[in-house]
Amino acid sequence: MRLTKRSRALLGPVVLATIAATLLPAVMARAATEPGGLDMLPILAGLALIIVGAKLGGSFAESFGQPAVLGELLAGVALGNLGLVGFHALEPLRSDVGISILAQIGVLFLLFQVGLESDVQKMMAVGTSSFLVALLGVVTPMVLGYFVSSWFFPTHNVLTHWFVGATLTATSVGITARVLADLGRTASKEGRIILGAAVIDDVMGLIVLAVVAGIIEAANRGGAFHATTVLWIVGKSVLFLAAAVVVGRWLAKHGFRLATRLRGEGVLLSVALVFCLGLAFLAGRAGLAPIVGAFAAGLVLDEAHFEELRARHRERRTLHELLQPLATFLVPVFFVLMGIRVDLGAFGQSEVLGFAAVLTLVAALGKQACSLGVLEKGCDRLAVGLGMIPRGEVGLIFAGIGATLTIRGERVVDGAVFSAVVIMVALTTLMTPPLMIWRMRRPGEAAKS
Amino acid sequence: MRLTKRSRALLGPVVLATIAATLLPAVMARAATEPGGLDMLPILAGLALIIVGAKLGGSFAESFGQPAVLGELLAGVALGNLGLVGFHALEPLRSDVGISILAQIGVLFLLFQVGLESDVQKMMAVGTSSFLVALLGVVTPMVLGYFVSSWFFPTHNVLTHWFVGATLTATSVGITARVLADLGRTASKEGRIILGAAVIDDVMGLIVLAVVAGIIEAANRGGAFHATTVLWIVGKSVLFLAAAVVVGRWLAKHGFRLATRLRGEGVLLSVALVFCLGLAFLAGRAGLAPIVGAFAAGLVLDEAHFEELRARHRERRTLHELLQPLATFLVPVFFVLMGIRVDLGAFGQSEVLGFAAVLTLVAALGKQACSLGVLEKGCDRLAVGLGMIPRGEVGLIFAGIGATLTIRGERVVDGAVFSAVVIMVALTTLMTPPLMIWRMRRPGEAAKS
Repeated sequence: MRLTKRSRALLGPVVLATIAATLLPAVMARAATEPGGLDMLPILAGLALIIVGAKLGGSFAESFGQPAVLGELLAGVALGNLGLVGFHALEPLRSDVGISILAQIGVLFLLFQVGLESDVQKMMAVGTSSFLVALLGVVTPMVLGYFVSSWFFPTHNVLTHWFVGATLTATSVGITARVLADLGRTASKEGRIILGAAVIDDVMGLIVLAVVAGIIEAANRGGAFHATTVLWIVGKSVLFLAAAVVVGRWLAKHGFRLATRLRGEGVLLSVALVFCLGLAFLAGRAGLAPIVGAFAAGLVLDEAHFEELRARHRERRTLHELLQPLATFLVPVFFVLMGIRVDLGAFGQSEVLGFAAVLTLVAALGKQACSLGVLEKGCDRLAVGLGMIPRGEVGLIFAGIGATLTIRGERVVDGAVFSAVVIMVALTTLMTPPLMIWRMRRPGEAAKS
Repeated sequence: MRLTKRSRALLGPVVLATIAATLLPAVMARAATEPGGLDMLPILAGLALIIVGAKLGGSFAESFGQPAVLGELLAGVALGNLGLVGFHALEPLRSDVGISILAQIGVLFLLFQVGLESDVQKMMAVGTSSFLVALLGVVTPMVLGYFVSSWFFPTHNVLTHWFVGATLTATSVGITARVLADLGRTASKEGRIILGAAVIDDVMGLIVLAVVAGIIEAANRGGAFHATTVLWIVGKSVLFLAAAVVVGRWLAKHGFRLATRLRGEGVLLSVALVFCLGLAFLAGRAGLAPIVGAFAAGLVLDEAHFEELRARHRERRTLHELLQPLATFLVPVFFVLMGIRVDLGAFGQSEVLGFAAVLTLVAALGKQACSLGVLEKGCDRLAVGLGMIPRGEVGLIFAGIGATLTIRGERVVDGAVFSAVVIMVALTTLMTPPLMIWRMRRPGEAAKS
């Protein structure tokens, strides 16, 4: 049989999927004879399965020119909903503590990497346009999300509506950056504005999350939410970020200089991890999400801080290269787990699908307000607006946090809303590459997919 | 003030330790406001602290020409016993599920790496001498350990004595290999015999562990242990290893070929991790320790399996290089946690110290029987015996497993025995480098420490 190039590309994944499916039943039973108090076997099997799913899904997505994250989400959705075809053995994965801890550490490393890719100077240089683009791109979708949610779910708590709005705020830096790089337009005026704005709206989104989550927790303790509460949370967030940047820079500089004197292997990576985990912990202690701290840690670290350490330890690899294997291992665990937690059963309600469709529309259109924030002349405003569309990790993280928050015993983000947010993330992620390619690819340039 | 080279080398660690100690109180309280059902903050703080401890301890050990693992253990002992000076905040680390899971994954990666460094062909080539050296080096210390334990603890169950014997069996491949490399003697006749024997006695040790743990579990269920039980466990172990090598080789060859068709980043590392985690899981299902599977996975994998994949994905790095950052992150977590679990309070009993001393003596002398297994002429038999002395990860793993096994409600390895094993590992690790350097360094060769 003569196979086309596409079907040959798919053959590998399909055969691997068949092997994986054959091994599935092995996951069903817990080993009775594992020596040791902690039963590692379900965690090991779950991890192996999640990595297989992530790679198959990612490869499948990429073979259609889509980002891998989309395929990882879909693989998770498939794994998590095998119950619909009568296979319930994987359902414990949804709430496995070990997998959940690894996923949380994975998302910390992702935000640490995103922070490392940006830096404070570059954010300053991109300036006012990026800030205005970010601000408009946060406020407009949030307000639209609020109205859509209160229109669809009039009986839900008003805080749920704001939480839905918050999930629409942050552009996914990773996806945008990758598409720009694929197009070779990272350094263009539009490219720099989009990247700067994406970084700023990540920070804004994290502040929004802290505010909304703080208000919900205040409400949950029975306290009303005052303007002072909001100010206090905003102040705390800004103060933490400022302190992280100022004190963190000082600490990074001197910490790495001290660490230069350490002997042994892996000093660079270890000190960076301590920095990331430590700031994540301190962010959590300040009432922020730990990811804010991980992002701040990446933001303040700079290859210059550890040039001396690398020279002394004859370390050829950059911190980015050292972090990559950790990200390869743990980041997909987060995205696949997010997919696993999507309950396709919720799609029985037709209003979920309708809500997801309207939410996606609002997410895409809301970011078009960004084009008004571009001050530079001769800039393709539509390209900037399109570049801001993809929602990714941060939106999912928000939804994940919302799913664990309650107001007087009622979940802030219930199964239906969570599923709609995941669909919104998947669709905005899916629509951006073709839209940006259509708008930004120069005429006559060879197609790269 | 003019500082000597040594005191300058120590200044960095001391200052970092001071900073770490200042931050310690932050670990004391759990954050009340962490949004999310799973409280990640103690895990993040614990991880950061463990990595700091590992690097300070490792650096300290290396500045005295000792392997880093020794310093990691000692750092753990220090962190875990701050209760003796009235600081009890870190004691929850001893039983933290998250840290424990990460430590277990770390030790899997370590054994996977050790397996990768060896290969089946090389083991065959080294041949009969390695096998005899390994056999004598397993049987003699085990029998001596049995007698020492039954002499010191006449009231303990007979299985405890065999378990203590088992902890003395396996030479630490990692430490031996590193010392040989430091001496530039890896390829010498003695070097090859030691490395081959160390690999074989690792496998033998793992079989011994499976047998002893299996017998204990049989006894625990009230069943007597028959010769057939032993045969069944040995058979199962050998069968699993044989199947892992034969089927695993086939699977590795075809799996990596299939994976070559996958798109996306990190395919090589991901497939290798799935292989490691999958075989660890299957080993567990076969009633063996998951580390046996991870070791077997490393043993059957060969850089040749993924040359095509690396070429296709333009991956410059070898699997070893990709695994290194994961090991840097997670392996020290295991060793520091082992140290944390050492209860210095047990040292109040003078018999523990005496037992530890005799156990160490027996561990060192027992391996000198190895020299009888060397068939080649013109070989430095004493060097081979000395090279087999260090006990490392496998001994600690055995002790860790023993600490979780019970016979009719009584722990197989209690706090006193566990502490003695840790001391034995520390002392054999400590004594080997100077002894090997004394015996194997060629006259006139420049000192490398």
